[in-house]
Amino acid sequence: MPQPLILINLKTYREGTGSRAHMIAQAAEIIGRESGVAIGVAPTYIDLHPLAHHFAIPVYAQHVDGVEPGANTGHITADAIKTAGAAGSLINHSERRLTLAEIEASVRALHAQKLSAVVCTNNEATSAAAAALVPEYVAIEPPELIGSGVSVSKANPGIIRNSVATVHAVNPNGTDGVLLASSVVKAKDPGAVLRDLVSKL
Amino acid sequence: MPQPLILINLKTYREGTGSRAHMIAQAAEIIGRESGVAIGVAPTYIDLHPLAHHFAIPVYAQHVDGVEPGANTGHITADAIKTAGAAGSLINHSERRLTLAEIEASVRALHAQKLSAVVCTNNEATSAAAAALVPEYVAIEPPELIGSGVSVSKANPGIIRNSVATVHAVNPNGTDGVLLASSVVKAKDPGAVLRDLVSKL
Amino acid sequence: MPQPLILINLKTYREGTGSRAHMIAQAAEIIGRESGVAIGVAPTYIDLHPLAHHFAIPVYAQHVDGVEPGANTGHITADAIKTAGAAGSLINHSERRLTLAEIEASVRALHAQKLSAVVCTNNEATSAAAAALVPEYVAIEPPELIGSGVSVSKANPGIIRNSVATVHAVNPNGTDGVLLASSVVKAKDPGAVLRDLVSKL
Amino acid sequence: MPQPLILINLKTYREGTGSRAHMIAQAAEIIGRESGVAIGVAPTYIDLHPLAHHFAIPVYAQHVDGVEPGANTGHITADAIKTAGAAGSLINHSERRLTLAEIEASVRALHAQKLSAVVCTNNEATSAAAAALVPEYVAIEPPELIGSGVSVSKANPGIIRNSVATVHAVNPNGTDGVLLASSVVKAKDPGAVLRDLVSKL
Repeated sequence: MPQPLILINLKTYREGTGSRAHMIAQAAEIIGRESGVAIGVAPTYIDLHPLAHHFAIPVYAQHVDGVEPGANTGHITADAIKTAGAAGSLINHSERRLTLAEIEASVRALHAQKLSAVVCTNNEATSAAAAALVPEYVAIEPPELIGSGVSVSKANPGIIRNSVATVHAVNPNGTDGVLLASSVVKAKDPGAVLRDLVSKL
Repeated sequence: MPQPLILINLKTYREGTGSRAHMIAQAAEIIGRESGVAIGVAPTYIDLHPLAHHFAIPVYAQHVDGVEPGANTGHITADAIKTAGAAGSLINHSERRLTLAEIEASVRALHAQKLSAVVCTNNEATSAAAAALVPEYVAIEPPELIGSGVSVSKANPGIIRNSVATVHAVNPNGTDGVLLASSVVKAKDPGAVLRDLVSKL
Repeated sequence: MPQPLILINLKTYREGTGSRAHMIAQAAEIIGRESGVAIGVAPTYIDLHPLAHHFAIPVYAQHVDGVEPGANTGHITADAIKTAGAAGSLINHSERRLTLAEIEASVRALHAQKLSAVVCTNNEATSAAAAALVPEYVAIEPPELIGSGVSVSKANPGIIRNSVATVHAVNPNGTDGVLLASSVVKAKDPGAVLRDLVSKL
Repeated sequence: MPQPLILINLKTYREGTGSRAHMIAQAAEIIGRESGVAIGVAPTYIDLHPLAHHFAIPVYAQHVDGVEPGANTGHITADAIKTAGAAGSLINHSERRLTLAEIEASVRALHAQKLSAVVCTNNEATSAAAAALVPEYVAIEPPELIGSGVSVSKANPGIIRNSVATVHAVNPNGTDGVLLASSVVKAKDPGAVLRDLVSKL
């Protein structure tokens, strides 16, 4: 089984923008190289281009709209994040939910640009549904853990095991798990927290 | 293969409320009995209770929210439509799109009340995703046909065949197709249009 | 200054549907007649018609969509709630937020049917904006109080005074305040709670 | 009366990103200096920072969320666009509608960062409501003109006059009109189209 991607979601924390975003991306690059674990970051749209150009790690957008370039004021196109140098995008994060039709359109828009899709879900049933759209990754965030400061893997290892099994039943090859890590962002020493997280995999 | 359900979506047409809703439901009951085809109606919330109590055909809500009874002003609970006598509900109609998390919650809320779920989708990929949620029915409405006055089955028989195959690949037993018919509603003689539709199955 | 309307929002509480809805409406009718205070109820869509026909008090929908009768599956039209016998509708409740364009369309749709609009807002600025749409009522629900079990008038009399002043500055004649009361619904003796509330006005 | 701001909305057109965005911004800078008319551009989030740093004209975001920096994945904070060098943001564009509560929060978030708010509306009533939130600008886009290729000022000068009067009645000093121009973006020679537009003011 391939090792999961660790994706550090910088959200819109002040501690995850500008020079802090660079510092966290650099820690991710160093620790990823040391450990052999794939580690990426998902910064704000504003930091997407500088991070993608300064670091060798995969940089993901936090959201993408499944619309074509055109009359879509205020939207984020796959085209735009491709130009910015992104490797892919989160889709349907619990803080930015989409309709099923929008999720499917976003996955398709990313794939048309050869970008990777990380679809976020909230339980086993929605994970199976997301897997049917054949994204590269499915990330499960049970609502009872969101904002609790407890990581999914620690609090409920069963839900991850079951969801991975469910995802693989629907889509045996193609879709993998991803570990969304946002606790790193506000840490005094993000590198130390990330190194600790990687050591437990 | 079981015969698909024909569901007459009365939308919010004036021609589909009050006495007209009763007339259409009566035509559905008569023609269903004559032909052996399962025919139901999906009226407005206001007509749900009277139609469910006056006719033997299945009566569906046009939308249901996957929320518990409680502090959810302006929502439609599975509990409320069960009390009104509904057999189930449409979910995620193209005119009332929901997030993936909401669709799953709505299917679950209906099932907790032993009601049937008809999830609407817009293409093969979203049909497969919907099937993973194990609703009783999946109804496909390709956006290029919506509002065109052309029925899905006439314009694009391939998309229906492929989608049914996709649905069955994800969920071999359990989920069936459904034919959403709204052209009946505004017809001068809804019974004649419905009888014609049934004769072509 | 005209006395504010008291509107009992039954939400989708089980304790606010069916026979309980009738019992609460009856209490509202009796206490309203005794006290001279205008008291109405806002039940679920399913209970709208029976309550409007059994009681003399104003019955409001909890939400209305500003769309014409037609191809709007799952929507609530002003036309439908008028037919059901409603006196008006809540719009933009904190549990069912709308865009500014939708709020304006809903107010307009109600007025076209000679129904009353109760626009809900969350602070002074949005109350002033709502008043500019000339609804019959504006109901303020500061987010810090929602779900706290503390009534707006008790916790923060200043916000009500200021908001009423703001509303009147924008729209001197026409728009009045309304007191949304949902604590009545789950009470063991709704009549006693309501009588107590009225005595404090 | 102060001259209105002309704001070129680059939307997500391919012809309005990257080097084309620079070319259009440069034309705006030159023609603005020549004519004395205030001309700004609203590019994608990705182009916000480079344009704001290369040109002296005001650069606006196309949308901003009224949320604090923090756990708001996929959102655009006023903080982020301030850092990128923006002068302000569009809010509630017809292609990115917001709830009334969100519009008010976005205006407030911009003002907290000393940025300008351009609230888009669809008719006189919503313009008056928007003016009550005291943004720097209100931009009216009647739905019958959107996407028609006909400019608001040409097709319906009355609606602009009436709306400006309505805005000023609600908010006599503070809120001005703005002319949203997107036809410039796809033009072969954006500078020529812009120069022509300015000559007609």
